[in-house]
Amino acid sequence: MIKPQTLKGFRDFLPEDAMKRQYVIDKLRKVFELYGFEPLETPALEYEEVLLGKYGTEGDKLMYRFVDNGGRRIALRYDQTVPLARVVTQYPDLPKPFKRYQIQPVWRAENPQKGRFREFLQCDADIIGTSSPLADAEVITTAVRGIQELGFKKFKVLINDRDLFEDAAKTLRECFRDNLKIQLELFFILAQAVDKLKKSGKDGVLADLEKRGLSEEQAVKSLEIVTRQKPTKCLTEIFEQLKKFGVEENQFFFENTLARGLDYYTGMIFEIEIENYAGGSICGGGRYDELIGIFNKAAGSIPQNWFSEGGGLNIPAVGFAFGFDRLVEAMDELNLFPQDTTTSNVLVTIFSPELLTKSIEMAKILRSKKINTDLYSDPNSKLDKQLKYADKKGIPYALIIGPDEVKNNRVSLKNLKDKTQQTVSQNELLAQLLKSS
Amino acid sequence: MIKPQTLKGFRDFLPEDAMKRQYVIDKLRKVFELYGFEPLETPALEYEEVLLGKYGTEGDKLMYRFVDNGGRRIALRYDQTVPLARVVTQYPDLPKPFKRYQIQPVWRAENPQKGRFREFLQCDADIIGTSSPLADAEVITTAVRGIQELGFKKFKVLINDRDLFEDAAKTLRECFRDNLKIQLELFFILAQAVDKLKKSGKDGVLADLEKRGLSEEQAVKSLEIVTRQKPTKCLTEIFEQLKKFGVEENQFFFENTLARGLDYYTGMIFEIEIENYAGGSICGGGRYDELIGIFNKAAGSIPQNWFSEGGGLNIPAVGFAFGFDRLVEAMDELNLFPQDTTTSNVLVTIFSPELLTKSIEMAKILRSKKINTDLYSDPNSKLDKQLKYADKKGIPYALIIGPDEVKNNRVSLKNLKDKTQQTVSQNELLAQLLKSS
Repeated sequence: MIKPQTLKGFRDFLPEDAMKRQYVIDKLRKVFELYGFEPLETPALEYEEVLLGKYGTEGDKLMYRFVDNGGRRIALRYDQTVPLARVVTQYPDLPKPFKRYQIQPVWRAENPQKGRFREFLQCDADIIGTSSPLADAEVITTAVRGIQELGFKKFKVLINDRDLFEDAAKTLRECFRDNLKIQLELFFILAQAVDKLKKSGKDGVLADLEKRGLSEEQAVKSLEIVTRQKPTKCLTEIFEQLKKFGVEENQFFFENTLARGLDYYTGMIFEIEIENYAGGSICGGGRYDELIGIFNKAAGSIPQNWFSEGGGLNIPAVGFAFGFDRLVEAMDELNLFPQDTTTSNVLVTIFSPELLTKSIEMAKILRSKKINTDLYSDPNSKLDKQLKYADKKGIPYALIIGPDEVKNNRVSLKNLKDKTQQTVSQNELLAQLLKSS
Repeated sequence: MIKPQTLKGFRDFLPEDAMKRQYVIDKLRKVFELYGFEPLETPALEYEEVLLGKYGTEGDKLMYRFVDNGGRRIALRYDQTVPLARVVTQYPDLPKPFKRYQIQPVWRAENPQKGRFREFLQCDADIIGTSSPLADAEVITTAVRGIQELGFKKFKVLINDRDLFEDAAKTLRECFRDNLKIQLELFFILAQAVDKLKKSGKDGVLADLEKRGLSEEQAVKSLEIVTRQKPTKCLTEIFEQLKKFGVEENQFFFENTLARGLDYYTGMIFEIEIENYAGGSICGGGRYDELIGIFNKAAGSIPQNWFSEGGGLNIPAVGFAFGFDRLVEAMDELNLFPQDTTTSNVLVTIFSPELLTKSIEMAKILRSKKINTDLYSDPNSKLDKQLKYADKKGIPYALIIGPDEVKNNRVSLKNLKDKTQQTVSQNELLAQLLKSS
């Protein structure tokens, strides 16, 4: 006896939810393609060595890893950036700059908790092969357009540069010299503590910095230095271009306390927050010029012009990911999904087995006009049951073709929302359904 | 040193291929929704016990199975039908008949060979909960419309009924009584041998039957009985309805030698073959009234009306799957994909860093008109390099905005296919690109 159950931490998406997800994917794909990004697909499984060690110890622990029948050590895709890095290195002939988007699930053996699942969709766009701030600006613009196309009106793009934390750490070191207990990790400590300013307040950040080994004076100074940082030259250029790309000045902000993925990003970083959605940022990204290089040594065939100006092994890259589940949740909360919960515009009912042919013919005509049409699949069901089915699925209209309708060469169109019914000719029917579809 | 390589038996889909796949998926999704099917998504991973034993010993061997960090025995999705069966049982409140489509990858630890991979996309549509031949006919019609929307003009739907093999076996048993060595598996042997009639010819089938234990006389009789079978009552009804649904009489055929998935299907079976494509059938399906029942005993909550008329534990089901890789291959061979190999209609080049603003503004305008626009991401690249990039990506047009163009308030539009170039106003540009996009 087998219990029909979904694996712990995983989700089924029944039609209503699957349609919502598909709606979001379709909108985002269109935006990605509008901005010149092309799709890429990579396998769910990779050699373990391709993925391992790229995400830190924590990542390795959360990876689904196993040995296949052929004794290969393999793992499920943990994100889409490392597979992208592999692809860029493995296919050196890809036209560059390489602008790609990728929308596929990833798997993490996390402890499931509210809003965190072991399988979730990632939705990335990246530009590989140029260190120009133009690419940074275009990536942010694409994310903004995506948010707008989904219907969000009020949002904030928060932008910072990792260099500012490096710079702050340097200033701090110069200030306190040998009195500073922390040296190497100062940059991380500053960033991680100050990032919580909004959440924990000034006192919270100071307490955190002291807990991490700074003196009170040093903590106060740290916060002061970080929060008075001004945009880098690169950020200023990105801001100028954002305006030219059409991003409004009240939509993006320099946020000198923003920190994210600091062992990963190398320059600009950004996040997008939705007003009146408390679930966290729904988009994040930045520049990461060092990650793609991890496969570099092995790929002797990589052309010289892939490399960064310094002639090192880096391949410049900038990109972002939407938090897909949060997007869907935020759209739900703010009522941004279209009202109909079905893909069908109309249910053609079957009045009786004898009149089945009439219903089939009507379904055929509607479908030939590209009107999404469900035909009830069981001619022996009572009409009432068929109408309940349409109602339960959220189909807005039901069509009834009984003996009277056949005699008068008309059909009855039932509006299942306002419970009205009218008897119309075939032409009137098509006009009405084409209008509403 | 890590070698950047794709796991054996798996594939990367670089943009050109990924776009083709997406084109097919989009077309098929539209057709599924046109016919009233709604999307369903299930997780990549399932409890092993949910999948195990449903596909026979061979299936269990080819499944990717492992133990997760929590000690659970889990497996990667092997097909979409068993997860569908689980969903139908687990959520008894789903409106029924339940018409769903599902387009997700499945994984099989097969020995990779030409055209067989360890990860491939499945593309299914099924109707669960009615044994009416109407559902059979609608499922076949949906498959036909899918094929047509992809551009295939000449194809054959071959249709048979599993019952005819049962019937033939019965007749044979009556003919030869105790002289027949094979009894129980006679049905399978008949079906499997005769199915190869087209491929191996009459002599091949007879030899095969004799090798499987029949006498020469019995083999000859077997072939005779099977090939003179006439459509069942159910098939005749399906054929009548197919015509009403608009499937042409030269598109579907009764094929009494067709056999497929005999330990799985319970009634009508069908396949679709494409003329001038030798890679095998690109679609197959049929009625399987017993599979969904496998989870039944555990689900006390299933309402009585889910069950088949006989009151047994069966849940009637009919559906089909497209062979996605074969579809793509057949479309490639028959030249059915749109010509452009890019999603971008135009590349906006950057004449010089000084004129970057002009290019950004033009990209902004084009994108506001929903014209898919790639903006070259590196303002320091030579124009020639930028044009080569567009050419390599198959982008049909490139836009050049140099000092002369700026002075005259015009832009140069280069057609990269016929290598012509014209200087036009912004309005002329929009008109031309909107026409071609």
